[in-house]
Amino acid sequence: MLDSVLKKIDENANRAIDAVKEICSIPSVAAKKQGIDETANLLMKMLEAVGIETQLHPTAGSPVVTGYLDVGAKRTLLFYDHYDVQPAEPLELWDSPPFEPEIRNGRLYARGVADNKGDTLSRIWALRAYKEAGVKLPVNIKFVVEGEEEISSPNLPDFTKKHANFLKADGGIWEFGSAGFDGTQEAWLGLKGILYVQFEVQRISHNAHSSNSSILPSAPFRLVWALSSLKDEKERIQIKGFYDDVVPMTKKEREFVAKIDFEENARRKFWKIDKFVNNYEGEDLREAYYYLPHLSIDGLTSGYQEEGSMTVLPAKASAKIDFRLVENQHPEDIVKKLRNHLDAKGFSDVKIAWYDGYPAAKTPIDHPFVKIVERANQKVYGHALRVHPTTPGSGPLYLFKDHVPMVSIGIGDSESRGHSPNESAAVDNFVKAMKRIAVVIDEMGKW
Amino acid sequence: MLDSVLKKIDENANRAIDAVKEICSIPSVAAKKQGIDETANLLMKMLEAVGIETQLHPTAGSPVVTGYLDVGAKRTLLFYDHYDVQPAEPLELWDSPPFEPEIRNGRLYARGVADNKGDTLSRIWALRAYKEAGVKLPVNIKFVVEGEEEISSPNLPDFTKKHANFLKADGGIWEFGSAGFDGTQEAWLGLKGILYVQFEVQRISHNAHSSNSSILPSAPFRLVWALSSLKDEKERIQIKGFYDDVVPMTKKEREFVAKIDFEENARRKFWKIDKFVNNYEGEDLREAYYYLPHLSIDGLTSGYQEEGSMTVLPAKASAKIDFRLVENQHPEDIVKKLRNHLDAKGFSDVKIAWYDGYPAAKTPIDHPFVKIVERANQKVYGHALRVHPTTPGSGPLYLFKDHVPMVSIGIGDSESRGHSPNESAAVDNFVKAMKRIAVVIDEMGKW
Repeated sequence: MLDSVLKKIDENANRAIDAVKEICSIPSVAAKKQGIDETANLLMKMLEAVGIETQLHPTAGSPVVTGYLDVGAKRTLLFYDHYDVQPAEPLELWDSPPFEPEIRNGRLYARGVADNKGDTLSRIWALRAYKEAGVKLPVNIKFVVEGEEEISSPNLPDFTKKHANFLKADGGIWEFGSAGFDGTQEAWLGLKGILYVQFEVQRISHNAHSSNSSILPSAPFRLVWALSSLKDEKERIQIKGFYDDVVPMTKKEREFVAKIDFEENARRKFWKIDKFVNNYEGEDLREAYYYLPHLSIDGLTSGYQEEGSMTVLPAKASAKIDFRLVENQHPEDIVKKLRNHLDAKGFSDVKIAWYDGYPAAKTPIDHPFVKIVERANQKVYGHALRVHPTTPGSGPLYLFKDHVPMVSIGIGDSESRGHSPNESAAVDNFVKAMKRIAVVIDEMGKW
Repeated sequence: MLDSVLKKIDENANRAIDAVKEICSIPSVAAKKQGIDETANLLMKMLEAVGIETQLHPTAGSPVVTGYLDVGAKRTLLFYDHYDVQPAEPLELWDSPPFEPEIRNGRLYARGVADNKGDTLSRIWALRAYKEAGVKLPVNIKFVVEGEEEISSPNLPDFTKKHANFLKADGGIWEFGSAGFDGTQEAWLGLKGILYVQFEVQRISHNAHSSNSSILPSAPFRLVWALSSLKDEKERIQIKGFYDDVVPMTKKEREFVAKIDFEENARRKFWKIDKFVNNYEGEDLREAYYYLPHLSIDGLTSGYQEEGSMTVLPAKASAKIDFRLVENQHPEDIVKKLRNHLDAKGFSDVKIAWYDGYPAAKTPIDHPFVKIVERANQKVYGHALRVHPTTPGSGPLYLFKDHVPMVSIGIGDSESRGHSPNESAAVDNFVKAMKRIAVVIDEMGKW
């Protein structure tokens, strides 16, 4: 029975890839409100083609697409995915246009293919194989596919509050996955929270000749000083009370983490660095990665940015920053502490123009559903899944965690370059990932 | 005799303005190497039309245009101007396209009209009035018009070394001028030096998902920390030895400066600020403006700069900064001290991608040529010229100061917005400025 499903997956591979290309051709950039409805509609058509009942749920932003297939089974499997993608900038660094999917050397290049349209389609085409092989699904299926994951899911809380019952399931597959540098398949049981903030400073009415900077206040210098005050060179965030709610690693967590192959050398080689930040290595490195909050500058903008020189004192300066939060930290609390910090340090002129975010969440390491995913991986890939307690990335797992234990697996690998130019996924791994989903379903039917 | 020249200036006003429009239509942005040859050629045609012999001097960058008219007079007047302009960005802040000159409410709007194509043409059309009125010029005329003033005149030193004799003159008019907020005409006897530097940082091989910032080094944070280390919030530059060569104000200078109406209130109102930087006022404010070096951030670039959010750890970050230097400071020395500072503070990763600059220079306050310009101003404008010992802006005056005493006057005013969007000059002041040049020539003939 399962064999005929797996065989069908091989037969359907090209059609599935064509479908990935089709959906990746639409630039559904939530940050720019582009191509959202078009992508949601195409996704619904794709779900309906495998017999799933869909619904479009309007929100204040992008609509949420749900899918439901009740086969009267004991267990229910839920998929959380998203149909929006990161902006493709800087465009000049792409070897092929980001929204014109292209296969080169066995990899499919397109913005969103690894994060996470390819994953989404690997779920759908696994189900399609069951249908086309004539094998009855042994579990009920639910889909929640949102369109604002890449802008911090601002409208998903409203949706999950209204549809809490729909979220109930015995196991769930979270949106993304990857492989280590050594090719080992990886799963993630949690996600960090996030607080994304836009800083804006304006100090004079309009841009001035920079010779005036001896007497006029400088927006870019104010911004630079303010940013500099947020974190010291030892990566320690200087905001008063920032670490108050951080729970130290337990002994059990420390032991679990100590066993993970973190591939330090391969990571350094990949990023072309001699050392990790703050000279972290070994346990410190893993603690920073899995269990500490951190702060990043995502963008800096001020004044003249083109070729050559322009002597201008810019009236304005802005920055985009993000905090990755760990369990027990809350964005609303952190943004208050951030504002207090700026005011206390004399940076009342540095405005928080807008912010959004959500807290962290984790699935327990020892949940039986984790074992099911591990078995499926062993069967398809022939090796043990590398399980991380959490990714340092973020996602709205906190909205699901009381309803369903989630494991994040997908089609990505160490070359996938999510959020960067030349995002890609390996075609043959896409096929294997479909099979792994098919086996998860099969194993879950026996639970 | 002079009266018929002044009458001719009034008669020619519209033609002169048309000529300003024509030359301002060419986007001669030296930073982008745009429209340089075209503008130089047009300028030569304009000079030749008033009987001036021109020469085009090729350099490693934009050519230098010289003009010479020897009437066998005792005295020689030299004009230093430039035919290049600042970039026009940000374009969206212009009310009319920067290179499509337009008159609104008595002002001509165009990039370069006040800095300094309008000035240049006011000199040329003053000479034209002499010619068309049939009045013999009482002084010999020299022009040096370069095409790289806005990018720190990198090739002018070669030119002036080769043509040192040509620079010899009894008096010179420097390129720009302005009026105070109260309408008082202003002259400048000196210019600060400049050191313009491009910082570049790259820490990882390519842009990463910002969740990786817990373990990967951040180019924008390195840049922010480095910039922050350069100057404290009291505007004191922290580079070791930076102030070593700064000569304190003399008693005479202090007295001279104390008498200048600095228009503090009008300046604050214009820039919409409550206080000057570092709460400077009175003497401290003037000292900072005229006699202290300073440091400005002209541009900041990193990561995602568009609408909304993108969670990216940028591989690269860059900044453009400029130091305004006072007499006795030298850019080559300062750039060495800057590099040493960065290295000593642990910022060897912050690269100085390129730099250029030159030192400061001043014409003595009590030179007889200054009196000639003051008399001409009184005659045309009916009020005393406000003489500043130096502008905080920069120009390659140091190349001329051993050959000719220079006074900077021109057509600008407090609304001119040089280096900013909506640069403009008042049409009626353009006409007056032509007359002032005509009277300077007349007065110089009596010297």
